[in-house]
Amino acid sequence: MHTETTATSSRPIETDTVVIGAGAVGMFQVFQLGLQGLHCHVVDALPHLGGQCSELYPDKPIYDIPGIKACTGQELIERLREQMEPFVPTLHLGQQVQTLEQQDDGRWLLATSTGTQLLAKAVVIAAGVGSFVPKTLKIDGIEALIDRNVHYHPANLATLTLQGQHVLVHGGDELAVQAALDTLACTPASVTLIHRRDVFTAPEALLAQLQIYKDTGRIRVVAAQPQSLLTTDDQLSSVEIVLPDGSSESLPVQQWLVFQGISPKLGPVAQWGLELVKKQLPVDTSTFVTEAPGIYAVGDINIYPGKRKLLLCGFHEATLAGFSIAEYLTDKPVLLQYTTTSTRLHALLGVVHTEK
Amino acid sequence: MHTETTATSSRPIETDTVVIGAGAVGMFQVFQLGLQGLHCHVVDALPHLGGQCSELYPDKPIYDIPGIKACTGQELIERLREQMEPFVPTLHLGQQVQTLEQQDDGRWLLATSTGTQLLAKAVVIAAGVGSFVPKTLKIDGIEALIDRNVHYHPANLATLTLQGQHVLVHGGDELAVQAALDTLACTPASVTLIHRRDVFTAPEALLAQLQIYKDTGRIRVVAAQPQSLLTTDDQLSSVEIVLPDGSSESLPVQQWLVFQGISPKLGPVAQWGLELVKKQLPVDTSTFVTEAPGIYAVGDINIYPGKRKLLLCGFHEATLAGFSIAEYLTDKPVLLQYTTTSTRLHALLGVVHTEK
Repeated sequence: MHTETTATSSRPIETDTVVIGAGAVGMFQVFQLGLQGLHCHVVDALPHLGGQCSELYPDKPIYDIPGIKACTGQELIERLREQMEPFVPTLHLGQQVQTLEQQDDGRWLLATSTGTQLLAKAVVIAAGVGSFVPKTLKIDGIEALIDRNVHYHPANLATLTLQGQHVLVHGGDELAVQAALDTLACTPASVTLIHRRDVFTAPEALLAQLQIYKDTGRIRVVAAQPQSLLTTDDQLSSVEIVLPDGSSESLPVQQWLVFQGISPKLGPVAQWGLELVKKQLPVDTSTFVTEAPGIYAVGDINIYPGKRKLLLCGFHEATLAGFSIAEYLTDKPVLLQYTTTSTRLHALLGVVHTEK
Repeated sequence: MHTETTATSSRPIETDTVVIGAGAVGMFQVFQLGLQGLHCHVVDALPHLGGQCSELYPDKPIYDIPGIKACTGQELIERLREQMEPFVPTLHLGQQVQTLEQQDDGRWLLATSTGTQLLAKAVVIAAGVGSFVPKTLKIDGIEALIDRNVHYHPANLATLTLQGQHVLVHGGDELAVQAALDTLACTPASVTLIHRRDVFTAPEALLAQLQIYKDTGRIRVVAAQPQSLLTTDDQLSSVEIVLPDGSSESLPVQQWLVFQGISPKLGPVAQWGLELVKKQLPVDTSTFVTEAPGIYAVGDINIYPGKRKLLLCGFHEATLAGFSIAEYLTDKPVLLQYTTTSTRLHALLGVVHTEK
């Protein structure tokens, strides 16, 4: 699989199809477009494939995928990844599609949060319940500090300036504990780990490490909630925290790493000018096209009479959308071929025939 | 799984749901009805589960089942059998639904070729391309002899009267060769095996056994085609066969076992008074109900705008039909529950929760 993480060109990438969303249904959409002989670009806000399956139930078994008695969300993603592998999509991960605009020639121009631009004949929105984005804090003045002094779920501490700084790590899960430990390697002035409760959810080994640094005074651990912040010369200088007994304390803080979990957000889809019904995109069930020619919607983001938000329904929708897109792009009827017998599909799938 | 092969009662069996067709989609329909808390009876003309997958491509790989990179037709059936196992359908195999008539109370009365009668509130037709039935011979006078002197693909030779009879076995595959060998155990007057060519398709071991009996004169093997028959007192007495050189010969025959393969036939569905479009049943894509209330159609037998005859589409159809039937039977909206999280679905599936 080819992964593009940065957009190096200011000219948009021209392509037949773009799939927005790399969850289970988006991945099967790649497979179905591949069977139609179409290459696609895939954009997702998460830095990895899998969407809801990976974020909401990676370890929980799913029982209703046809022919798979039980598999976890993450196992299903792994299976779909293998299945779509022959079709080598170009992945644009860790970026959100911000704008989607039809051009004079009928094609659609997409621009992502990291500056990637794609110019596509057909776009499939497989955005599920929206993008999974880090939960943000509601504290006066915090907006202006984001990406400078406040970092939501930073993926890589090495890209931040932590050396000699007072660092506040804020969260109760494995990511927060790991970040507090990793911060020490950046030689900060101090590290404080706050969480509303005095209990952390992380592997034993990590908690044992935390305990050692806590005992030696290298990480201060406080059960507390942040309440307000102060800035000096437009830079964060301190955070006021409230302790369980109601008392408050002011911490010197220059860098604040926030790990409050991630949650789905419909996000920019609502601004693309497409008709929405209950935050979902109405589609025609024979083609899964939306009201906009060239824009399709599959999976949890679409709505039609009888719709049930089930993975296996999304797989069907992606399949019919695949046929429909192939017909839209060629302006010809596409006949059904079976993967059991079609030599054309075998060639696309990379199935090797051995002479008998 | 509970298998009913004979109908012992003249009163119909009353049930919520009947699924006609035990192919892949019919099997997944059983699973989906099970998730709705509904038990069902399943009828199929074949003596086993699997329909087209088992008959047409048992050993051929399928590549487009979501999450299954490749599996043969027979493997898929085995997977679906395991998946539907918690719901213990009652199987009525080796029998074809002959009639389907609505009763005054709105329920549907089905009668099968072996006399089973079922009275159901809802019926799902998952009959694929029709019933797989043995190919028949076009020979004057043969119709009147069926099941007395002429047997198409007899499942059990022990139920026939072969002792002291001149037996003609007719076919070129494993089933035909096996039947010729098995007939010897019934102490017939003679056994003749005919096939249009002098080549049989059967495992080596079986062909070696045939050779021994041929050499010792216990089975006569002739490359020939049947042309006509003679009866004496309404019973078969001889069959005239044509040899490759064009000459003919009259064989004394009282019992004729025909193995000419099986093929799908739409069959009685066409006589049930349901609207057919190109031999398919039009359905509403929000419910997969036909024009007749209580009669649903899923898989290859249905038609709707955008329809593609793919297994994965049939699975979606069976799922929405399951919800629709549950709503039809209870007259209440059925809310979506997920198999990952619903304790009700876990109880139905027999998923055991271990305390942590």
